[in-house]
Amino acid sequence: MLTKEIIANKFKDLQDDICHQLEQADGSSFHEDAWERPGGGGGRTRIIQGKHIEKGGVNFSAVEGDLPEKISKALNLPKSQFFATGVSIVLHPSNPFVPIIHMNVRYFEMDNGTWWFGGGIDLTPHYINKEEARFFHHQLKNTCDKHHFEYYPKFKKWADDYFYIKHRKETRGIGGIFFDRLSENDAFTKEQRFDFVWDVGNSFCPTYLHLFLNNKEKPFSDEHKNWQYLRRGRYVEFNLVWDKGTKFGLDTDGRTESILMSLPATANWVYNYQAAKGSREEQTLFQLKKDIDWINKI
Amino acid sequence: MLTKEIIANKFKDLQDDICHQLEQADGSSFHEDAWERPGGGGGRTRIIQGKHIEKGGVNFSAVEGDLPEKISKALNLPKSQFFATGVSIVLHPSNPFVPIIHMNVRYFEMDNGTWWFGGGIDLTPHYINKEEARFFHHQLKNTCDKHHFEYYPKFKKWADDYFYIKHRKETRGIGGIFFDRLSENDAFTKEQRFDFVWDVGNSFCPTYLHLFLNNKEKPFSDEHKNWQYLRRGRYVEFNLVWDKGTKFGLDTDGRTESILMSLPATANWVYNYQAAKGSREEQTLFQLKKDIDWINKI
Repeated sequence: MLTKEIIANKFKDLQDDICHQLEQADGSSFHEDAWERPGGGGGRTRIIQGKHIEKGGVNFSAVEGDLPEKISKALNLPKSQFFATGVSIVLHPSNPFVPIIHMNVRYFEMDNGTWWFGGGIDLTPHYINKEEARFFHHQLKNTCDKHHFEYYPKFKKWADDYFYIKHRKETRGIGGIFFDRLSENDAFTKEQRFDFVWDVGNSFCPTYLHLFLNNKEKPFSDEHKNWQYLRRGRYVEFNLVWDKGTKFGLDTDGRTESILMSLPATANWVYNYQAAKGSREEQTLFQLKKDIDWINKI
Repeated sequence: MLTKEIIANKFKDLQDDICHQLEQADGSSFHEDAWERPGGGGGRTRIIQGKHIEKGGVNFSAVEGDLPEKISKALNLPKSQFFATGVSIVLHPSNPFVPIIHMNVRYFEMDNGTWWFGGGIDLTPHYINKEEARFFHHQLKNTCDKHHFEYYPKFKKWADDYFYIKHRKETRGIGGIFFDRLSENDAFTKEQRFDFVWDVGNSFCPTYLHLFLNNKEKPFSDEHKNWQYLRRGRYVEFNLVWDKGTKFGLDTDGRTESILMSLPATANWVYNYQAAKGSREEQTLFQLKKDIDWINKI
């Protein structure tokens, strides 16, 4: 039987494996802080400030206790004991031609027997490269298609809607997949749901490392770096204004430093920035839109 | 009679006067964008990227129309036409020894005759200087005391509670005054409420320019500058996560570039920053607390 302990241990292994592969690729090491949650459970926050990853985190947590009232209200859940475990990743690379990546896989259960999986991967290139966007979405589609033909289209749309900076009317990046409350039903067992989430987690390294290794040595100018700082400013705006996970974490007394590991080392804001006509920056802005079919786009 | 037109015009004059004085002090000029709000009204956003003010805005707006549903719900107000006008200021100085300042004065009315004034001034020193903190609060107290002896203690506490970064358990800076829903009652006429708000607005320049001129040429190191970037990161966290004005603005389709003029040119995040024992940075952190009596503190 797929117990919460087994799932948490698998997620721990996933964290170990991803950290190991990233350390190899970057040539530097993670710093780990193990922490305990006053209400129950804890986590392992791992931070890298590396050669090519300017700032990044690969966090594991498994927390439990009384379901915080803010969460039960917001999610319309009964008062309950809860258990939640997951792995969360955000990497901000140094090189502006390496995209920012985010991944999360998570499992939640309550003592009344309700449970679900959630997660996703999305990519935020500072400069959108169509070939790489196609590759990224193709990888996700392959992972999804192994489990159900409706997964990719449904979860791709979900990501477009979720990773949307409403006040800018632009997407955070080129999206990816996002899913939540994947539970048991006629079509899927718990094991099948977990297998999918597991595959998503394990698709992270082959997908991201391809983009990382391809671009980490590319020459760049101050202009490229400044654009990266501006795009990071948008990333901060999304995470602090709109991201539900961040808000709940901060609202419910989560470990601030683990939650905000998603923020970049440096971000800039310029009043009313306008990209030059015909520039790569303008081309990227044009493509920060929902509902782009990255795989079949020519 | 103190009509909304008169109040808006006075606020416009206040914007002009403050911009003029800041331009003189900085030796540089504001850039103005006049804008219109699709639902009614508009504003004049003025941005400075000056010699000593790294990035700042002094905004005037006077907007009207149907009260957005999100606001009527959140503020528990009936469906109505509304009118709102105000001046908002945030200045991020270059020199880490010059504090960040924020000021806002505003007037709101509905077509059922309900109206109120709100506003405040608060200071965010990167390094807290007790003499300057005392001076700042003394200035505010003088302004308040001219109108009512209960204003300063009440509005000082309100600022401590409002400008609080809950997830960091620290105040944004050394506070100041904050007030809202100042309306007519047995003790105050509309004219008296306005006179107070007007005095607050006009206290901005003598108060801030003293701090600005005293410190703008002070020598500083990279270490000081890095600390400034970290403190700005906290400022971003407060404004995007907790500030109600920012949230409502972004939520109700306000002009994003005018709302987010409050963000600094550059901000940094360092995972789990720890100030060195006995350092000025640590001393400042110790003082980012509510309920400090800055005036009588020795």
